[in-house]
Amino acid sequence: MGRVTARRRVLRVRDGVASYRPDTLAAEEPMEIRVGGRPLAVTMRTPGDDFDLAAGFLVSEGVLHAAGEVAGIRYCAGATSDGGNTYNVVDVVLARGVAAPDPSLERNFTTTSACGLCGKASLEAVRTKVTWPVAGDPLRLDTETLTALPERLRAAQRVFDATGGLHAAGLFTAEGELLCLREDVGRHNAVDKVIGHALRSGLLPLRGTVLMVSGRASFELVQKAAMAGIPVLAAVSAPSSLAVDLAEEAGLTLVGFLRGTSMNVYTGAGRLLTGGPGAPRLAPGRAVG
Amino acid sequence: MGRVTARRRVLRVRDGVASYRPDTLAAEEPMEIRVGGRPLAVTMRTPGDDFDLAAGFLVSEGVLHAAGEVAGIRYCAGATSDGGNTYNVVDVVLARGVAAPDPSLERNFTTTSACGLCGKASLEAVRTKVTWPVAGDPLRLDTETLTALPERLRAAQRVFDATGGLHAAGLFTAEGELLCLREDVGRHNAVDKVIGHALRSGLLPLRGTVLMVSGRASFELVQKAAMAGIPVLAAVSAPSSLAVDLAEEAGLTLVGFLRGTSMNVYTGAGRLLTGGPGAPRLAPGRAVG
Repeated sequence: MGRVTARRRVLRVRDGVASYRPDTLAAEEPMEIRVGGRPLAVTMRTPGDDFDLAAGFLVSEGVLHAAGEVAGIRYCAGATSDGGNTYNVVDVVLARGVAAPDPSLERNFTTTSACGLCGKASLEAVRTKVTWPVAGDPLRLDTETLTALPERLRAAQRVFDATGGLHAAGLFTAEGELLCLREDVGRHNAVDKVIGHALRSGLLPLRGTVLMVSGRASFELVQKAAMAGIPVLAAVSAPSSLAVDLAEEAGLTLVGFLRGTSMNVYTGAGRLLTGGPGAPRLAPGRAVG
Repeated sequence: MGRVTARRRVLRVRDGVASYRPDTLAAEEPMEIRVGGRPLAVTMRTPGDDFDLAAGFLVSEGVLHAAGEVAGIRYCAGATSDGGNTYNVVDVVLARGVAAPDPSLERNFTTTSACGLCGKASLEAVRTKVTWPVAGDPLRLDTETLTALPERLRAAQRVFDATGGLHAAGLFTAEGELLCLREDVGRHNAVDKVIGHALRSGLLPLRGTVLMVSGRASFELVQKAAMAGIPVLAAVSAPSSLAVDLAEEAGLTLVGFLRGTSMNVYTGAGRLLTGGPGAPRLAPGRAVG
């Protein structure tokens, strides 16, 4: 396919001097996800790893839990008027006996709660869908392992250096070993691609792993981690209030502003505060918050 | 309402030393947009300027073009089981004679094109909806005016400094004067809030203005600018390939990597290359790209 990046001519201006030069951009194309031929969702994504994206999206929404639940994934041909294939429509065929997604998913599952649309209802909606609770995950983490992740993520990003326009999501072991990296113009897509890859590789639930994202941590990213059984989500930038609330509720460790030797641990700090070697030392007199 | 930020306790780790302290986070809550009582879309947003968000969303989708097309906007009470108001469901009542949105909008209008789901179809879908073509907008810009925008946007951001977690969108005059600033955990929402404010203030189309965003420039952000009649979109970070394609198609000036005295002009460079004072000087021998 080779459409992860695209070349365009750009006028580059530096200190009032302008020159034309070629530039490499992150590719963006719409993709429709179908289940058994029925359209479910459209996302603007960077082409590549499309089957992982479709599978991961369905894990995040509580439809898929294991590779065996998928009978097949394919591009839909004939989507154009001349019968050609745009490679932008992906159909996931479920195995016999696997329940098709709730039609309300087509809009947004947060609206289906009976108790009104609010943050609390959003948390409740995730709680009812989680298959593998992460609260009991015995994972313990070194701060040094965590602080090493952003650089490892960055080093593994091939496309970012060329375009500056892609979000990255990396799945790491507790020792900081990279298991899977995916990039996309949409940060939700990058995470779905990682989780979909794990599903198709038979790796769910992702117990004992750390998901690292290049940007901010939203409610939806925490949701995706929780649905895949990932106990730790680390982000380079800030989390939102609802991301912290969901992480707290799910027993997930949420780390933000992971930069240099610093980080903010918003929830689940017990996985770091082990008192063992490599654990952060609580500053005297400030231990009680 | 006062829910733009939220306070949470965080474990801050610096060089292996940890201490608990209070932290300010960007608030995130779901919001449902209804038109005449009919649910249309749900977005995760930062509470505040919710009526602007709903109105701007409907401008972006081609439903609204003028303040007079709105009979009223209100929060739906009774959305919770105890009859309370979550302030997360906003209903837009259209004036008599204004066409309600296409039901297919509920999924995503890019799928309604007859010629298949692809970037070209997405461009075509926008072309059919644009009310005020920006290609003929006579706006001319100084590079100095443009390079001053990021700092002005930043200075005007009240919430960002506290949370580090909000995207900003600012609408500027050709002279660099800030007309409107909005922030949100979602960058699309920040832009919709700006455009909705303009609609409700009777300012559409936004001829001769510049929209500046704090992050990257996606297809959807260019679409929103084009739908509001904004001829120039400037971003701190990179655009995607489809953002550039749509800007080119629409005759919109798209600027990326606007930092310090530098920028990349992806489309519509003619609005800068005027040859007049303040215009960038083409480097000798590199004028032809």
